[in-house]
Amino acid sequence: MTLRIAVFGENRHEKVDPKVQEVYPEGMHTVIAEALRSHLAADGIDAEVRIALLDDIDQSLSEEALAETDVLTWWGHMAHGDVPDEVSERVVRRVHEGMGFIPLHSAHYAKPFKALMGTTCNLLWRNDGEEERVWTVNGSHPIARGVPHPIIVPEQEMYGEMFDIPAPDELVFISSFAGGEVFRSGAVFRRGKGKIFYFSPGDQEYPVYRRPDIQRVLANAVTWARPEDRPAAPVTITNAQRDWFRADDPEGTTRVI
Amino acid sequence: MTLRIAVFGENRHEKVDPKVQEVYPEGMHTVIAEALRSHLAADGIDAEVRIALLDDIDQSLSEEALAETDVLTWWGHMAHGDVPDEVSERVVRRVHEGMGFIPLHSAHYAKPFKALMGTTCNLLWRNDGEEERVWTVNGSHPIARGVPHPIIVPEQEMYGEMFDIPAPDELVFISSFAGGEVFRSGAVFRRGKGKIFYFSPGDQEYPVYRRPDIQRVLANAVTWARPEDRPAAPVTITNAQRDWFRADDPEGTTRVI
Amino acid sequence: MTLRIAVFGENRHEKVDPKVQEVYPEGMHTVIAEALRSHLAADGIDAEVRIALLDDIDQSLSEEALAETDVLTWWGHMAHGDVPDEVSERVVRRVHEGMGFIPLHSAHYAKPFKALMGTTCNLLWRNDGEEERVWTVNGSHPIARGVPHPIIVPEQEMYGEMFDIPAPDELVFISSFAGGEVFRSGAVFRRGKGKIFYFSPGDQEYPVYRRPDIQRVLANAVTWARPEDRPAAPVTITNAQRDWFRADDPEGTTRVI
Amino acid sequence: MTLRIAVFGENRHEKVDPKVQEVYPEGMHTVIAEALRSHLAADGIDAEVRIALLDDIDQSLSEEALAETDVLTWWGHMAHGDVPDEVSERVVRRVHEGMGFIPLHSAHYAKPFKALMGTTCNLLWRNDGEEERVWTVNGSHPIARGVPHPIIVPEQEMYGEMFDIPAPDELVFISSFAGGEVFRSGAVFRRGKGKIFYFSPGDQEYPVYRRPDIQRVLANAVTWARPEDRPAAPVTITNAQRDWFRADDPEGTTRVI
Repeated sequence: MTLRIAVFGENRHEKVDPKVQEVYPEGMHTVIAEALRSHLAADGIDAEVRIALLDDIDQSLSEEALAETDVLTWWGHMAHGDVPDEVSERVVRRVHEGMGFIPLHSAHYAKPFKALMGTTCNLLWRNDGEEERVWTVNGSHPIARGVPHPIIVPEQEMYGEMFDIPAPDELVFISSFAGGEVFRSGAVFRRGKGKIFYFSPGDQEYPVYRRPDIQRVLANAVTWARPEDRPAAPVTITNAQRDWFRADDPEGTTRVI
Repeated sequence: MTLRIAVFGENRHEKVDPKVQEVYPEGMHTVIAEALRSHLAADGIDAEVRIALLDDIDQSLSEEALAETDVLTWWGHMAHGDVPDEVSERVVRRVHEGMGFIPLHSAHYAKPFKALMGTTCNLLWRNDGEEERVWTVNGSHPIARGVPHPIIVPEQEMYGEMFDIPAPDELVFISSFAGGEVFRSGAVFRRGKGKIFYFSPGDQEYPVYRRPDIQRVLANAVTWARPEDRPAAPVTITNAQRDWFRADDPEGTTRVI
Repeated sequence: MTLRIAVFGENRHEKVDPKVQEVYPEGMHTVIAEALRSHLAADGIDAEVRIALLDDIDQSLSEEALAETDVLTWWGHMAHGDVPDEVSERVVRRVHEGMGFIPLHSAHYAKPFKALMGTTCNLLWRNDGEEERVWTVNGSHPIARGVPHPIIVPEQEMYGEMFDIPAPDELVFISSFAGGEVFRSGAVFRRGKGKIFYFSPGDQEYPVYRRPDIQRVLANAVTWARPEDRPAAPVTITNAQRDWFRADDPEGTTRVI
Repeated sequence: MTLRIAVFGENRHEKVDPKVQEVYPEGMHTVIAEALRSHLAADGIDAEVRIALLDDIDQSLSEEALAETDVLTWWGHMAHGDVPDEVSERVVRRVHEGMGFIPLHSAHYAKPFKALMGTTCNLLWRNDGEEERVWTVNGSHPIARGVPHPIIVPEQEMYGEMFDIPAPDELVFISSFAGGEVFRSGAVFRRGKGKIFYFSPGDQEYPVYRRPDIQRVLANAVTWARPEDRPAAPVTITNAQRDWFRADDPEGTTRVI
């Protein structure tokens, strides 16, 4: 079955910031989408990758569009507030129904991520173009498949602890920075029927998403986050009659989660 | 230091439902508050227990009142929607700052609990007055101290899986019901600087909170959830200068979490 | 790449116990192996399933045989003590290197499982042929794909809490029994580079492994537990020279975990 | 109730290595024991701290001695192999029964720690006297109470990932090193009825345990790890008769875990 991916890009820095235009002349989303296409093709995975922008968010992340999206990657920063609340709620609902969600870097502050975490998602930061090293701390996780230990990103914004997230269900990567800080940079969360992977490398001023090792992580994450073959509906609240599970489920109580 | 506890009671069923009036003539909150007082006194813990009601929620859970609350227990059901959004946001913020939070039974649907979980918190239910048995599944957890294995509650509403919560940071109790269902009935979550313990026994129609074994759990939970001796502020987002942690912290970056 | 599976069967009850002979005339291992073959074929997974018995354990679980095994399922009960210590250590080592491991039912007491857990693995039990219902408590786990909620096993041995295992990395199933007990019946553990799934249904006296729903779980588990494409070696201990990760790794420090 | 602590010291480097003799002329164990005494006294905790050495291990960690020990801290390195297997098994058994266990630094390779983990406990290392910074990543954990963020240890041996342990039940600290590596340096595990806290700072060549901030962590950890008020016995395996939990427990099935 085709893996249907949407790459959400805020695409604002690319319009106003010469430094970012130089790094991503056609937008960060274009580089991410192309990376997913080529890596997934190399992995033999049948995938369709489309782009969704803040400028067309009412259409590109409409109810209908999300219903046909298996995994959504999300990059945003300066315009988190411009994402309509109802779009954020829609994304959250789709994660509950099973859609994979991959918030990237400054999307630690994206509305749907914060709503799914229930914490402030605060952190330390410093944009000094420091080296980041991304270390694998989970020996058997598919998201770390084929990933160098460590990935070395020569220039990056520092993100540091205390990162105010719930304890991840699985911690895959921890980063260190030249300035001495550490960060839980690759973290798995499960919410409802959906899988979430937050991955922090990727400031707009540095060509992080052009790196094959980072692209490897993104492709692994998207594959891992695809929904299981299940009804695309949230877990229901139901008044279940006694012995409902012995009957032919007359009340419609979900028998396959 | 005195442990300052607030027992929030919706106190609506007690006003309108004869069955509940019979079980809790002076309100469920009164029984919970008294149970905490006596059990904590027996434990040698210096505690103050106050009651907060939906009818006085603007005062009893005001910014000032919450600032002086270490642990908040919460029972609500038919009037979740009457809790003002700003009160719920205040509670969530205080949990982030370190306040303990103990949602009880139907508070799986309370606004602040849902906001802290990021999931639907849906579940199965059936009110048939069935026997519930509460089994300890964590051999070393302070919340299970002195608790029978199992607690037997002769009559209770059934709550059943799939319970749509994030995987608990620690699972303490699992219940079974006479009808055959199971439920993760005692679950620990940490959010920001605050500790949360969801405990499901306690439907309004049965005298569950009058049971000494259930009261033992409540007293254990409140003691466990008290804030650590830390600044009562959420984790901050900060632009941290290089080597900030070597200096005398001129930017105010928190040095003790 | 072919998924190479070994189905270990103790095959002792089948020799001495008429009740078991009636349920599994050709051995439990034969039924499990055939179930994996047919379900994985239906899933389009290229798999080879071989049988390993206690009687041929020196060969069937030799160093060489294990080196060519991706996932090992294990059923044992009355003869745990007859498994040579060096075979158990070999299995543990292979799990550390990446081999998947699926201990079934009474294998909660198998030597390699106990060594991987570090706990007593004690539990309650009662063999009364009671109904077991297996409930999914993880909405997005691949092992629960296509599995009824609940699975109803009409006759089974009861296994009950307190089950003395480490808190699972992921809890997938919880069972209830007609007698009122509960059990964490489907539990994920990661150790080294290997994935472990303990699944409790399957007493020898009842035809549990003949059930398609139980077979579905086994096939899901085996697929999930297959090693990632990584060097089949445990995580190493290494004296790492300063800046080893910038160089071409002269000391042989593993660069891909 | 008095908190009974045993500080196990291998005490071998102190005998043969001039550098260590200079740092710890009366042995590392003396410094750790004195630190616990003074910090716990300041906390108002009634504690008795005794020293146990490899040279007297048959007595100091005898069955009787361990039975009267609530929490055991453990430092060992060059003589792990000299710890008798039966002493290690005794320690593991006592942890299952409820004793707290605090392995320090190179005790990642101590026999009882490895047996409790079920993994290789391998890691990267380099002894270059580099700066280590210990960052808190858990906002509400009692072990991080009053601990600077970060603790800066000017000179330490580097311990780096991939650290081959099970995913900790709670991750409290992550360290970075001047050479760029990271390490999960403060990790909580629960096994049976016992609590375990592994804490990595503390190479013998540097006066790490003389630091008040490190001593603060040790005192917090010992307090946290004390056994709950429970029967000091492992979880039992029991054939539980139907309805055992309704009766007065004639079979001796444990009713309080």
